[in-house]
Amino acid sequence: MTFDVVIRNGTIVTASDMFTADIGITGETIDTIGHDLTGHRVIDATGLLVMPGGIDGHCHIEQEEADGTVHEDDFASASASALLGGTTSVVCFASHVPGRDIVAQFEDYLRRGQRSRVDFAIHQIVTRTDADTIEKGIPEIAHRGAAGLKVFMTYDDFHLTDGQFLRVLDAAKASGLVVSVHCENYDAIRHMIEAHLAAGRTDAHAHATSRPSCLEREATYRAMTLAELAGHDIQIFHVSCPDVAEEIARARHRGVRVSAETCPHYLTLTESDLKRDGFEGAKYICSPPLRTQADRDGMWPYLRDGVIGIVSSDHCGYTFEGSSGKARHGRDADFSLIPNGMPGLGTRLPVLFDAGVNGGEIGLTDFVRLTATAPARRYGLYPRKGTIAPGSDADLVLWDPARQVTITNDLFQGNIDYTPYEGRLVTGWPTIVLARGKIAVENGQVLREPTMGRFIRPECS
Amino acid sequence: MTFDVVIRNGTIVTASDMFTADIGITGETIDTIGHDLTGHRVIDATGLLVMPGGIDGHCHIEQEEADGTVHEDDFASASASALLGGTTSVVCFASHVPGRDIVAQFEDYLRRGQRSRVDFAIHQIVTRTDADTIEKGIPEIAHRGAAGLKVFMTYDDFHLTDGQFLRVLDAAKASGLVVSVHCENYDAIRHMIEAHLAAGRTDAHAHATSRPSCLEREATYRAMTLAELAGHDIQIFHVSCPDVAEEIARARHRGVRVSAETCPHYLTLTESDLKRDGFEGAKYICSPPLRTQADRDGMWPYLRDGVIGIVSSDHCGYTFEGSSGKARHGRDADFSLIPNGMPGLGTRLPVLFDAGVNGGEIGLTDFVRLTATAPARRYGLYPRKGTIAPGSDADLVLWDPARQVTITNDLFQGNIDYTPYEGRLVTGWPTIVLARGKIAVENGQVLREPTMGRFIRPECS
Amino acid sequence: MTFDVVIRNGTIVTASDMFTADIGITGETIDTIGHDLTGHRVIDATGLLVMPGGIDGHCHIEQEEADGTVHEDDFASASASALLGGTTSVVCFASHVPGRDIVAQFEDYLRRGQRSRVDFAIHQIVTRTDADTIEKGIPEIAHRGAAGLKVFMTYDDFHLTDGQFLRVLDAAKASGLVVSVHCENYDAIRHMIEAHLAAGRTDAHAHATSRPSCLEREATYRAMTLAELAGHDIQIFHVSCPDVAEEIARARHRGVRVSAETCPHYLTLTESDLKRDGFEGAKYICSPPLRTQADRDGMWPYLRDGVIGIVSSDHCGYTFEGSSGKARHGRDADFSLIPNGMPGLGTRLPVLFDAGVNGGEIGLTDFVRLTATAPARRYGLYPRKGTIAPGSDADLVLWDPARQVTITNDLFQGNIDYTPYEGRLVTGWPTIVLARGKIAVENGQVLREPTMGRFIRPECS
Amino acid sequence: MTFDVVIRNGTIVTASDMFTADIGITGETIDTIGHDLTGHRVIDATGLLVMPGGIDGHCHIEQEEADGTVHEDDFASASASALLGGTTSVVCFASHVPGRDIVAQFEDYLRRGQRSRVDFAIHQIVTRTDADTIEKGIPEIAHRGAAGLKVFMTYDDFHLTDGQFLRVLDAAKASGLVVSVHCENYDAIRHMIEAHLAAGRTDAHAHATSRPSCLEREATYRAMTLAELAGHDIQIFHVSCPDVAEEIARARHRGVRVSAETCPHYLTLTESDLKRDGFEGAKYICSPPLRTQADRDGMWPYLRDGVIGIVSSDHCGYTFEGSSGKARHGRDADFSLIPNGMPGLGTRLPVLFDAGVNGGEIGLTDFVRLTATAPARRYGLYPRKGTIAPGSDADLVLWDPARQVTITNDLFQGNIDYTPYEGRLVTGWPTIVLARGKIAVENGQVLREPTMGRFIRPECS
Repeated sequence: MTFDVVIRNGTIVTASDMFTADIGITGETIDTIGHDLTGHRVIDATGLLVMPGGIDGHCHIEQEEADGTVHEDDFASASASALLGGTTSVVCFASHVPGRDIVAQFEDYLRRGQRSRVDFAIHQIVTRTDADTIEKGIPEIAHRGAAGLKVFMTYDDFHLTDGQFLRVLDAAKASGLVVSVHCENYDAIRHMIEAHLAAGRTDAHAHATSRPSCLEREATYRAMTLAELAGHDIQIFHVSCPDVAEEIARARHRGVRVSAETCPHYLTLTESDLKRDGFEGAKYICSPPLRTQADRDGMWPYLRDGVIGIVSSDHCGYTFEGSSGKARHGRDADFSLIPNGMPGLGTRLPVLFDAGVNGGEIGLTDFVRLTATAPARRYGLYPRKGTIAPGSDADLVLWDPARQVTITNDLFQGNIDYTPYEGRLVTGWPTIVLARGKIAVENGQVLREPTMGRFIRPECS
Repeated sequence: MTFDVVIRNGTIVTASDMFTADIGITGETIDTIGHDLTGHRVIDATGLLVMPGGIDGHCHIEQEEADGTVHEDDFASASASALLGGTTSVVCFASHVPGRDIVAQFEDYLRRGQRSRVDFAIHQIVTRTDADTIEKGIPEIAHRGAAGLKVFMTYDDFHLTDGQFLRVLDAAKASGLVVSVHCENYDAIRHMIEAHLAAGRTDAHAHATSRPSCLEREATYRAMTLAELAGHDIQIFHVSCPDVAEEIARARHRGVRVSAETCPHYLTLTESDLKRDGFEGAKYICSPPLRTQADRDGMWPYLRDGVIGIVSSDHCGYTFEGSSGKARHGRDADFSLIPNGMPGLGTRLPVLFDAGVNGGEIGLTDFVRLTATAPARRYGLYPRKGTIAPGSDADLVLWDPARQVTITNDLFQGNIDYTPYEGRLVTGWPTIVLARGKIAVENGQVLREPTMGRFIRPECS
Repeated sequence: MTFDVVIRNGTIVTASDMFTADIGITGETIDTIGHDLTGHRVIDATGLLVMPGGIDGHCHIEQEEADGTVHEDDFASASASALLGGTTSVVCFASHVPGRDIVAQFEDYLRRGQRSRVDFAIHQIVTRTDADTIEKGIPEIAHRGAAGLKVFMTYDDFHLTDGQFLRVLDAAKASGLVVSVHCENYDAIRHMIEAHLAAGRTDAHAHATSRPSCLEREATYRAMTLAELAGHDIQIFHVSCPDVAEEIARARHRGVRVSAETCPHYLTLTESDLKRDGFEGAKYICSPPLRTQADRDGMWPYLRDGVIGIVSSDHCGYTFEGSSGKARHGRDADFSLIPNGMPGLGTRLPVLFDAGVNGGEIGLTDFVRLTATAPARRYGLYPRKGTIAPGSDADLVLWDPARQVTITNDLFQGNIDYTPYEGRLVTGWPTIVLARGKIAVENGQVLREPTMGRFIRPECS
Repeated sequence: MTFDVVIRNGTIVTASDMFTADIGITGETIDTIGHDLTGHRVIDATGLLVMPGGIDGHCHIEQEEADGTVHEDDFASASASALLGGTTSVVCFASHVPGRDIVAQFEDYLRRGQRSRVDFAIHQIVTRTDADTIEKGIPEIAHRGAAGLKVFMTYDDFHLTDGQFLRVLDAAKASGLVVSVHCENYDAIRHMIEAHLAAGRTDAHAHATSRPSCLEREATYRAMTLAELAGHDIQIFHVSCPDVAEEIARARHRGVRVSAETCPHYLTLTESDLKRDGFEGAKYICSPPLRTQADRDGMWPYLRDGVIGIVSSDHCGYTFEGSSGKARHGRDADFSLIPNGMPGLGTRLPVLFDAGVNGGEIGLTDFVRLTATAPARRYGLYPRKGTIAPGSDADLVLWDPARQVTITNDLFQGNIDYTPYEGRLVTGWPTIVLARGKIAVENGQVLREPTMGRFIRPECS
């Protein structure tokens, strides 16, 4: 049999295994894993790692804000960056802005996604819990294929009360949807921001001191208690420090079904980056904020243990100098007006590979598990996505573990005008990326057009 | 020198010491502790323990509810029960009902207290955080002598949001007032009650299952985090189980300045009491609810360690059959309409002595520390109250450690028509009680009239 | 291409993946995983799970005791039981009895292993730390292919002092060998046994009360501290209860590189089994002993989390009535003379599958991870063993998840005359087992002869 | 009535109380606490704190080493230093050197104590557990009035195995003696010292790195487990860091009856002192060693909580330049040969007062509790010693909380030629010290002669 494409002689890495073999692809899917396969096109992967294409389980793309504006990084742009960094699927967020029906917003977002170059699934944000949303909206969205729900415990326009959160948990449980949570205490942060501004603290670093880790720890503890009460799974998003991770471990050992995610920036950057000269510190504003160096270094054991099981980018499509950008909103104002979040779709895999695998903190199978298999499972994309097995989509990244690259924002060819990792030297880089059997990146060029990405319905919810 | 009264040859017990001596009293205060003292009246205390009169740091007396009704157990009645049980000072609660100025309510309550037979201090409840309350009310109440503030994290008419709680903490810190907290998650309990009622659960035991310990644990964790943020002391009221106590210990070891209280019922009764036949279970409704037997038995190490430093009654002046009573509100309705709380002013010391001291769980000095010295210190009554030392008020209880008494409600001569300890046999009972140098109880009779109690301003706040 | 054997259309399960495909086998190894493969022999696996053959990382087979006697369950017998239960590789133990050179004992044991029907690796026990053993013996044994070292913190003839343990750790680190540890406090157990005997306690249940869990917890804590000091990996054998697991989790979160194992009996039996009538309780004597029901039920979260990463049998080749058996040594004597350990090679997979997978505690990929992939990785057998991938040995078990079997000892056709699971009904059973490409079990018959097993040298140590 | 001595108008501080009164002394004891007392001698204490004389529960005085040499700081010298620092009772150590009967050694040491200026009680060290020692020696020593037993888990000549420790615990329980423990892992330290010396590390700081805190933590955990098993109280000596304290808190919350002590040096000095120039670092060698600054600062919460209930000196009577001194043994050798321990009898109270009370970490009643009442209770000296109450010995220290003193070794007039606190400025100093009713220190002069101290038998053991 002659396959459409054969990836020859690469070191195949899955979440549990590593072995050398050929991969035979027919059409969009992996057909065979074996030896001496023949293909119409043969790609020699000798000396390269062949991994499942990255799955970014948490990224904000072309998302609508409460005021109706939309992130500048749109689907065409963001999905190009994703591919260039080795990521072939994303889970992004449909908004739930005031005055609009939740199902309509899901459908709107689905339409926008048609311009994606990568396959995508959708987390539906929930910011209101009126009867319509709970009784009709959530079941309908589950029916239409949402990957899960997302709630916020902070932010002016988004945060839910504990009672609202419980209503969402009950509805999600009935519809079989996982609930992901941004855990920070809204009231207390509001209080702290006012105190900082009253004391004349307007600089970027005040962002970190006004949202101390104890407020993330508290909200996480609360979210897990409410999930325990509701008897439903939750996913803690973007854990920033070991104190929070330790509370998650304690809850898991009590039997609470909670899982967690962190992001590359909590593993590689620190709050001191917020003190960078000029207005540079603003580039490092995200929530939860970057923590101390000791916090950063203490995260790895929790990744090894599986307490934190996913590494996503929490990519935010804000520019620095653009119309919706950090500089525009914040330069002459104060830290509290600067949009929260950093770009990370393109840098996620290389930065984690370098810090984690090269740094001796995690193994190659851990890397695949954290960046592809676990998010695929958690959000229902598995087994179509997230692994290398017969029948799975042929989303593959051929990774050169020895290639050294100095990160610059230009590499990612997107609408965002900066990266927080500018100038960072990393070892390990994607050389060829395949998406559903077709070459999507080669020689640093994106070969996959907008509209070629498809919406992914969860296999099982 | 001849003293007005001499207590001869008793075993004097303080929070740290135990020794045999005479106490010489002049007027209202202790003058001298020595030997062979002579007095106009000499009371032989040979074979008796002589302890500081009990201080009940948490009791609801003649308190106004949100609807304007007032607890049936008024100052005259409640203070009689207190004395009969060996308690000579109480810290009770001024309400903060809607539509009325907080200072006016403090003053009203102070007036009501004029009918007390025992000295009293006042916790001021705070249920609103408008500018007037925060900026004028709280400083003024501190100035007028409140012992502290009390906030609720639950109950329809009382609970504060986290933001309001932080405003109270800031104001209390500025005025030097400790903040005591009822820790249960309002939203989640509301959610659970509705779920129970929807499932047809109206019985008394549903009170316990609708407020599981995880919701007390969560709220306690949150309260401590907010106190840590504000940098101000808090007092956790009525800790009901070891899981909560363990979180308090963890916070203390991190350096958070938090102290805690429990009540005799959490040390001697269990949730199975809520299943008693007929409507009897309703007598055991209090919040947080009674917990399991394992919870009850696991509390003692935390009392020995000082993690829980105070044992108060959380006395609630609701009758069972009376106009404001549990039966009237609940018998033909459901558990959620039954007033929360049990009487305990009179039984506090005998029940704790029997379970704790006779049970080998705590020592005599621990008993005095938990029931008198620690609450006196915590609420600013010390050193006038809470110890036996020259210069302190001659509030004393002569305690017969060998006397066996079967508890019946009649013993306490109050307006309340039941006790949850009816029929319980205890060993150890107050035989003579002195209040400011005068005999207040002798032969089971109250000799102290209403109006003889005085308001106690904190020595230092 | 026509394969020697094709396993058609089974649901292939690995430690991370599950998918339907064919497996093509050439000679002894897996060549291809794909679809529509053709083979000289085709085995239809429709409706069956196809998993890597089980790897039992901890079993005592034909082991020499300190007194020179040898376990009655020899390689031919034990390996038959293993195959009948779906296990295709074992890691067993070379003794280190007094007066004999460690290398000679390793070689002796290797010779005995020639009679095995399954492939085997060897843990070398270390009971002495003289210069010869440390400086020559351990490096030589590493060179000859030991899978790791095993030390005991208890047992008269085996236990090491902490100083000896450190010397072994240093030597193991230098030779790249993992050290596995039996953690119980020798001195304290000795003390407790004497106290029990002095009090007339000779019954089987005294075995459990004389080795309380606090002594396993203590020894585990100590072993991890010593490993932390030495900077070398350890593997905690047979964790019996959640208290011990929790200490392991704490150490891991501090960054200590420790992994752990438990056994099916700690997940399914309890100390009350030691109270069975007559001398039946003696069948349940193992060390650490079986714990309480609450302990048993509290283990699962630690397996899900990866704190406990391996489930082995701790199979002990003692008979009940035979020459070296429990009855012979213990019936007219006392509990302390009964050999410690239970058979478990054959029952390991079915018992765990039923309790864990059917019980909803773990998933199928967890099952493969715990019973095959993780032990293969930990002891250097991977990737030859422990997974289903091109290039790996074709050790496979075809598992019928719906088949109900009542366990009786006869099923396992070995030299052991009892099973602790006699009469237990389980769902899920191996139907066909392949070892290196050949059918080893079919229709409940062992088709693989003694001498067909091979010694496995670790791929990397 | 006219008292022999009246202390007028001081601020009396006990472990729980603080009030202003006169103290009337008759003969050796306190008779009366009151007002306007008259005495043959009146000492004006206006503006001074009047506290119970310090009780040092852990000090090595004129102790015999295993080699038969005796500490240079003898009873006459050491007790002078104690008095000058405000300490009026000591609990010191009778040796148990090889080849000599334990009762004979107790009696020898009792004879040496006749030269003391302060009252003293005796901890009996146990280093062997032969039948004679266990069955006859320990009961006899209890009968003769030992305050408790002391065992070591480290040191070549002293350490017990776990089995020996259990035998001591059983014997101590039968005789009603508390067992105090030096917790460090002997074997592991021995291993570490050898590794340091092999690597050429001979400097003083190697003392700290060769005994890392994990080895104290491990031994403490083990000691508590053994005490839990034996069902007998233990006292953990000289806790050096919060990690160890946290394990103690965990055990206490599980219900284990364990108490603990720390020393001023763990609260004020750090391991960096071991790096002082020249041979100065050797002055800071003690065991467990000084820890990091973060460790030091993290201790206070555990003192406030009562997890650590006693502050003793662990005074060691080694000189620096003298015949048994640190310099003599260590200057031309290596760290392992330098005697372990620092002088601290005189500095204990001023150093703790300044760091703890002035530093805002503990209150005055805590100070008295930690330095006098708690050790008196723990070792059976209470109520004769450790408090201010009628009937107690008139051991009193008049303390000027405002007096500033720069510590120099000369202040303590002893045989020791250095203090680790040389040059440290402290606020708060004893001005007058009374021992059993007589002035023992005034104007910096010791007025109490050797032989005036008495042996104290425990009131109850």
